[in-house]
Amino acid sequence: MPNDALAYHPPAETDRFAGIDRPTLVADRARAQRNIERMAAKAEASGVRFRPHFKTHNSVEVGEWFREAGVTAITVSSVEHARTFADAGWDNITIAFPLVTRALPTIGDLATQVRLGLLVEGPEGVTALASVESAVDLWVDVDAGYGRSGARWDDAARLAEIAAALVHVPRHRLRGVLTHAGNSYHAPDHAAIRGIWADTAVRLAAARDLLAAATGASGLEISVGDTPGCALMSRLTAVDEVRPGNFVFFDLQQLALGVCSEDDLALAIACPIVGVYPARGEAVIHGGSVQLSLDTAPGPGDVRNFGRLAVVGSDGWRLVPVDDGFVRGISQEHGVLRCSPDILAQLRVGDLALIIPAHACLPANQIRDWLVL
Amino acid sequence: MPNDALAYHPPAETDRFAGIDRPTLVADRARAQRNIERMAAKAEASGVRFRPHFKTHNSVEVGEWFREAGVTAITVSSVEHARTFADAGWDNITIAFPLVTRALPTIGDLATQVRLGLLVEGPEGVTALASVESAVDLWVDVDAGYGRSGARWDDAARLAEIAAALVHVPRHRLRGVLTHAGNSYHAPDHAAIRGIWADTAVRLAAARDLLAAATGASGLEISVGDTPGCALMSRLTAVDEVRPGNFVFFDLQQLALGVCSEDDLALAIACPIVGVYPARGEAVIHGGSVQLSLDTAPGPGDVRNFGRLAVVGSDGWRLVPVDDGFVRGISQEHGVLRCSPDILAQLRVGDLALIIPAHACLPANQIRDWLVL
Repeated sequence: MPNDALAYHPPAETDRFAGIDRPTLVADRARAQRNIERMAAKAEASGVRFRPHFKTHNSVEVGEWFREAGVTAITVSSVEHARTFADAGWDNITIAFPLVTRALPTIGDLATQVRLGLLVEGPEGVTALASVESAVDLWVDVDAGYGRSGARWDDAARLAEIAAALVHVPRHRLRGVLTHAGNSYHAPDHAAIRGIWADTAVRLAAARDLLAAATGASGLEISVGDTPGCALMSRLTAVDEVRPGNFVFFDLQQLALGVCSEDDLALAIACPIVGVYPARGEAVIHGGSVQLSLDTAPGPGDVRNFGRLAVVGSDGWRLVPVDDGFVRGISQEHGVLRCSPDILAQLRVGDLALIIPAHACLPANQIRDWLVL
Repeated sequence: MPNDALAYHPPAETDRFAGIDRPTLVADRARAQRNIERMAAKAEASGVRFRPHFKTHNSVEVGEWFREAGVTAITVSSVEHARTFADAGWDNITIAFPLVTRALPTIGDLATQVRLGLLVEGPEGVTALASVESAVDLWVDVDAGYGRSGARWDDAARLAEIAAALVHVPRHRLRGVLTHAGNSYHAPDHAAIRGIWADTAVRLAAARDLLAAATGASGLEISVGDTPGCALMSRLTAVDEVRPGNFVFFDLQQLALGVCSEDDLALAIACPIVGVYPARGEAVIHGGSVQLSLDTAPGPGDVRNFGRLAVVGSDGWRLVPVDDGFVRGISQEHGVLRCSPDILAQLRVGDLALIIPAHACLPANQIRDWLVL
């Protein structure tokens, strides 16, 4: 007999699930809204502006949940996404990606419609903005230790070059310094995440002060944005604006970092089961790298884990223990789900498997079909 | 002075490149057509049916290049793609993915329009096809050692169950056995790829003979499909049909396997350069996991390599040596391009970087914008 605690209940064949015939995003709206409200309340209590990143969901419908929580300013990561959300009625948008100078015509159009924030990482970008006729907000992209893009926080010469270039674009307004401390995703423990938060704030303050001295500007702000830091810190100290995105859904990576609970996991992918192989202890699902992406989370032992099986309960879904069901391998359209015998005995070809992704952002970008619970 | 042999020439700002303002697929049509013609000629000389897999490009336009080479039968990996190519006039399509029983209504519609081949991996799938009123071709998905989906080649009991289920669907026709020997992608050398080819053919013949004995069917065929095997073998022996896909473009993974030459690389991604960091020896491009995917190829040393820099010459593009330019890191929209000082000195914010992907299939699926040279 299967262990009842692990009993697999496929999603009920109600109207909501009955039409699913290919990998489909399933959002738990109540959990996502709770995640949004919690972060919004923390930002308010901390006295910082909440400008959530919409790259995680990239969905106009999910965006409305933020609006219901009082959000008026958002972040996106591409000009294309800025256009999507401008068309959906958002009028205060920062594109948190270094200026793509080749896209200046589109950026110039956007700037006539919305209050647009842009990132500049060097003097070339600043100077190029002379062609944008409507005023925009400028944020200097600062590398505070992640090593991806931006001027290094302590590179006074580079920051002075950026400041000097601002004289060519007097209509635009320097707002402050901005970073994404993506290194927090690889932090070994909570102390390391807190350390990255503190170091980032100190380094951004140093960069801000260098810029203020070089430009004479006052009131320059500090904007940061990683979900691990924003979710873990009880108070969002020493910054003026936060831009987390991943927290709306969380995922296995955030769970492994210990910055969310299982009850916060708000996105799953419903995948048709297409094969059950008891001798191997595996099932095969329609859900491969095209849908789940190649992102992984810590698995059992050294095994890579592309997603974990969830079961539907009365209060949303819950994970089964990792040894009872996880995606151990993936190719373009196939996922291989390794299961315990108890779980496997309950899976049937034609059922749906609910998979919690290792990282929510790519599936949410790659799959077009949504089901909202 | 830069070493002239490594001189970086950004793509010429002709009309063809001038409009690119975000990551864009660039196909070298002459190379792709040469790749297609070479494989078609090899199949013809070997006396096997050529049913190329369209999942690699998933493009109606690229599909026409196959038609020009005489291709009339194709492979896809999802019901959705079958619909795309049926609408584009292809009338002989195999969906090389285990039957998704939840999609039977759409499959039934498709079967009225085209000659449709379907994969069955067990008796449940066979029996479910009773609801499809137009005759379809059935292929038994066989696991010949890759360990992904399908009945094991030597599992006589399972093959007998499948054979027994066929009596419920007399209007459909059993065509043969089919596998994807994806293990060839991980083969250490050419001998291993040849060994996988030979073992696969022997195992599929065994499965075919078990099925023939159980059903009394004659003329059952063997269908295989991996690009490493099909590209390496000078003659496509001991099979009846081949379904490679990746070979139309090839990529860094195939180059590392030694089954194509640099001159065969027919797909690049044009990525705007958004930052140049001489102190780090790196540039940052707009081209992250959303566009390039997280697939990697063998890099310099132990470093993961998400793509390599190419330069434009008079006869198409060519790779620069890996130490001179490769994508060492990636996040959702950012790619970090590590370069030699000579190359880096020639990169400018606003130029395009041409990146040859580690694996062509995901970028071709994820990016919607194409430029054909």
